[in-house]
Amino acid sequence: MRQRLVQEVSTAVETARLLISCPDARGIIATVAGFLAEHHGNILDADQHTDKQHGEFFMRVEVEQAGFDLDHNTFARVWSPVAEKFDMRWQMYWGDEIKRMAVFVSKAGHCLNDILWRWKSGELRVEIPFVLSNHEDLRADVESLGLSFHHLPVTPETKMRQEADVQELLDQSGVDFIVLARYMRILSPSFVAGYPARIINIHHSFLPAFAGARPYHQAYDRGVKIIGATSHYVTDQLDEGPIIAQETMAVDHRDTVDDLIRKGRDLERIVLARAVHYHVEDKILTSQNKTVVFN
Amino acid sequence: MRQRLVQEVSTAVETARLLISCPDARGIIATVAGFLAEHHGNILDADQHTDKQHGEFFMRVEVEQAGFDLDHNTFARVWSPVAEKFDMRWQMYWGDEIKRMAVFVSKAGHCLNDILWRWKSGELRVEIPFVLSNHEDLRADVESLGLSFHHLPVTPETKMRQEADVQELLDQSGVDFIVLARYMRILSPSFVAGYPARIINIHHSFLPAFAGARPYHQAYDRGVKIIGATSHYVTDQLDEGPIIAQETMAVDHRDTVDDLIRKGRDLERIVLARAVHYHVEDKILTSQNKTVVFN
Amino acid sequence: MRQRLVQEVSTAVETARLLISCPDARGIIATVAGFLAEHHGNILDADQHTDKQHGEFFMRVEVEQAGFDLDHNTFARVWSPVAEKFDMRWQMYWGDEIKRMAVFVSKAGHCLNDILWRWKSGELRVEIPFVLSNHEDLRADVESLGLSFHHLPVTPETKMRQEADVQELLDQSGVDFIVLARYMRILSPSFVAGYPARIINIHHSFLPAFAGARPYHQAYDRGVKIIGATSHYVTDQLDEGPIIAQETMAVDHRDTVDDLIRKGRDLERIVLARAVHYHVEDKILTSQNKTVVFN
Amino acid sequence: MRQRLVQEVSTAVETARLLISCPDARGIIATVAGFLAEHHGNILDADQHTDKQHGEFFMRVEVEQAGFDLDHNTFARVWSPVAEKFDMRWQMYWGDEIKRMAVFVSKAGHCLNDILWRWKSGELRVEIPFVLSNHEDLRADVESLGLSFHHLPVTPETKMRQEADVQELLDQSGVDFIVLARYMRILSPSFVAGYPARIINIHHSFLPAFAGARPYHQAYDRGVKIIGATSHYVTDQLDEGPIIAQETMAVDHRDTVDDLIRKGRDLERIVLARAVHYHVEDKILTSQNKTVVFN
Repeated sequence: MRQRLVQEVSTAVETARLLISCPDARGIIATVAGFLAEHHGNILDADQHTDKQHGEFFMRVEVEQAGFDLDHNTFARVWSPVAEKFDMRWQMYWGDEIKRMAVFVSKAGHCLNDILWRWKSGELRVEIPFVLSNHEDLRADVESLGLSFHHLPVTPETKMRQEADVQELLDQSGVDFIVLARYMRILSPSFVAGYPARIINIHHSFLPAFAGARPYHQAYDRGVKIIGATSHYVTDQLDEGPIIAQETMAVDHRDTVDDLIRKGRDLERIVLARAVHYHVEDKILTSQNKTVVFN
Repeated sequence: MRQRLVQEVSTAVETARLLISCPDARGIIATVAGFLAEHHGNILDADQHTDKQHGEFFMRVEVEQAGFDLDHNTFARVWSPVAEKFDMRWQMYWGDEIKRMAVFVSKAGHCLNDILWRWKSGELRVEIPFVLSNHEDLRADVESLGLSFHHLPVTPETKMRQEADVQELLDQSGVDFIVLARYMRILSPSFVAGYPARIINIHHSFLPAFAGARPYHQAYDRGVKIIGATSHYVTDQLDEGPIIAQETMAVDHRDTVDDLIRKGRDLERIVLARAVHYHVEDKILTSQNKTVVFN
Repeated sequence: MRQRLVQEVSTAVETARLLISCPDARGIIATVAGFLAEHHGNILDADQHTDKQHGEFFMRVEVEQAGFDLDHNTFARVWSPVAEKFDMRWQMYWGDEIKRMAVFVSKAGHCLNDILWRWKSGELRVEIPFVLSNHEDLRADVESLGLSFHHLPVTPETKMRQEADVQELLDQSGVDFIVLARYMRILSPSFVAGYPARIINIHHSFLPAFAGARPYHQAYDRGVKIIGATSHYVTDQLDEGPIIAQETMAVDHRDTVDDLIRKGRDLERIVLARAVHYHVEDKILTSQNKTVVFN
Repeated sequence: MRQRLVQEVSTAVETARLLISCPDARGIIATVAGFLAEHHGNILDADQHTDKQHGEFFMRVEVEQAGFDLDHNTFARVWSPVAEKFDMRWQMYWGDEIKRMAVFVSKAGHCLNDILWRWKSGELRVEIPFVLSNHEDLRADVESLGLSFHHLPVTPETKMRQEADVQELLDQSGVDFIVLARYMRILSPSFVAGYPARIINIHHSFLPAFAGARPYHQAYDRGVKIIGATSHYVTDQLDEGPIIAQETMAVDHRDTVDDLIRKGRDLERIVLARAVHYHVEDKILTSQNKTVVFN
């Protein structure tokens, strides 16, 4: 198993992923593929999508780094004229630059445990500079793995100051994206604005049903026959950011609220892990408050 | 196959189903089981559920008619004293009394086709006195199977009069319950009040998400990764009656609104068929705007 | 609804789909996209996959016919030199050439009913020159829709002669592909050889579990907690052809064999419809006894 | 959360679960419910099933311990005459007797991590006297939680001796049941015979498909569109014991063997956890190499 995981890692290191969105036009694929061929970039995977309603084009190309005659120093300069021609928003991710992920938690440890296990086993290729919580409860779970745990408590009065401290931690650590693994606090719009499509939340319901607090209680009261979980990017509209992944599970009248909470934990872990996996693999583009996930 | 279906039918004919709900108390199961044993009723299936939050007890017992020394003439009289002791709401369904089901449709035929096929093949053991529509479109589908089709058009001005005509048809035909197989009209509270837990609707979303009109358009705009369908009993609160069955299906950014509509049709058919099946088999109890489905 | 379906149809008419498989090499995507751009073909959808284990490359490109300066008379000549350079197997499907589908059935009508409904509603864009059966049972279902029904009974003794008659019907009608909608007869290897990846079967189990006869009985005896259905292309190895689609459903100890058969019918219909949809939309490539489905 | 879990626990402590199987007969439910009522046992939950094919009756009754005038010293004596009358196999589980579970692992830690987290969080109400492995790899994962880890390596030559050592550990620790959390060794028939329906295995395929070694490789080679996992009781027939739980997940041509292994880990964890949960809650009866799971 270990050998196989290492193999996966070494493959991944050698690729670069180009994400593009732009107004739809003829010849984009030919131009992009032609550009890469010209620079000896071997395309390992290409995905494309056109949103006909909004006339928007999306593309993800994964290129072997070996042989490719551009690198992270030279790519932008050579590529920009092409991108400008099609009015592209684009991003190039180099596989040898490991992303740095901060994890925010409160008291519930199931999502955290799941993420840390995936990281530890090599399944999730990230660095974790620290885990942050507004409670002390999960310190041992984090530190026993040799990771840093920061406890920054927060009250309504200290909210702004705490967020400033959080921001400082993020800046010092060079964090690329944040995972809210059941962090039960609402981040301020100005904080969120600093991480567009870079804060991943798990909401414990099938959004847009049961947004807000205590969704399992809401689900129980409504008598639904299926519960769900939703991972999404955080925006300044609570529980309304672009949805990345969702999953559902059958329940019935025998399930108490506690049963829904217990069963839901499994959904939450899997849906959050899936979203983080897509993000780390650079498979997500956003537009119109929606995601295009090239999975 | 035909032989097997007939076998199923003949088995079903021989059972009676007793549905009970009452305040929770000790000794209910023993009393019910004892009563049935005393009258030589062989219990083929027994299901029970206690809602601890509301202190409510639910039970379904299926008894072989052969050997049972009570029948639909004598049962109520002998059983009532027991029922009163526990303050029971109860209903006894005799398997040899086939339920009479009216189907209401508008223009979309997928749910209708599905229901009629199940009826025709013997899978759904009901009589269908008529299909009613506010449009002519599906007449041929119904009449080609030898069933009656009533076209009762409706405008905002004629709504009350049309409903009176509908009511008359139902009364004349001795209808037990109504299936709204994508009938795109809202029934009046007074009409609905006449059929408590006896009108089954299919809503083309995962309620409570996307209640109201054009749910697939709403789902598309929100960018969900899963769509759903919900069957529920109709109450005077639109799309808020007790949920009987739900099902979901994965979708992604490639799916247009038309794709959601197309894929959703399969969900709708299956979820509606499941709800109707439960209803016909007397597997549903309601309370607190929820269902207990002994499936 | 009708208007929307027509719209779908008219859109579909205007595209051509190019399916390619070849040994993996650098520059294929650039070459294909460049070729199409050069001939003013607007790419509406492009999908690509590389099987690294076998070094095989697969691609599907959907091109708008309007504006494209090649058509079904000229395409092959102009394209062939490119295809030969990469040693491609390829196929070009023109959206205005509606496929002709024959349906084979025995006695069970659920899959047939489903397919015919999809055809009638416009969801399935095919022509159905005839339905063939070794029994008379489903004649009325077919003829009531204005379609031809051929009854060709078969016994072990007449198998070869019957197959010759079937072949003649297919040839006369210019059939493109065959759907075995629960046709309970095994076709001879020589017959199958004439329709490579053009005969779609539905098997009522989750293959490779419960291949062969009476899969629901096998599933019941094994006590599985999930049943399934599998659609696949037919090869001369019974139930071992390339799998196109599969779906599963939870069951439990309460389900008798008859319940499994009843529940399974819903799976079978949906899985078969999905496979037929992919085939008609030219989304399937085959290799190594597997399918690549660009859905 | 913690408070809620404790609440669950305290509720659970107060119930006793009676599991019964016997030849089908009239009056069993009345007799059992009457017996419990007579002894002031409040029935919180009752489930019953009749296997008509084999004429076998199954029942599970959960009784509140408070008020019940029998306990684990007196129950058997008073109950036995009733049980004998119906030729019952039966078992009474008292909620205040926490089960002792041994976990066997090899090198893969995903199932172990999952089980230990559920135990640690209070979700899984068992005692874990030790974890046993034929490798050293997972020692730290176990010991960091304050649990015992035994490393008993095994080679073909030492198999019998190792099993004797394992047996001794089990005996010393008073183990009630064993979970094989990806323990990649086959236990001898004589060992297995000592734990009928008390060894739970997780097999990483949808049994009976892909029994034996390397199921994900088999699944990849066959080109299935769905993978699965199966938990079952271990018998002396490899991978053929009674199935407790199964789950499946969609895959496609893009998934390599490594992807199947990665995705499958999530299935395995959830399916194994579900089976262990059922076992701990005394919800499983076995017969005819199948399970009746009253979930």
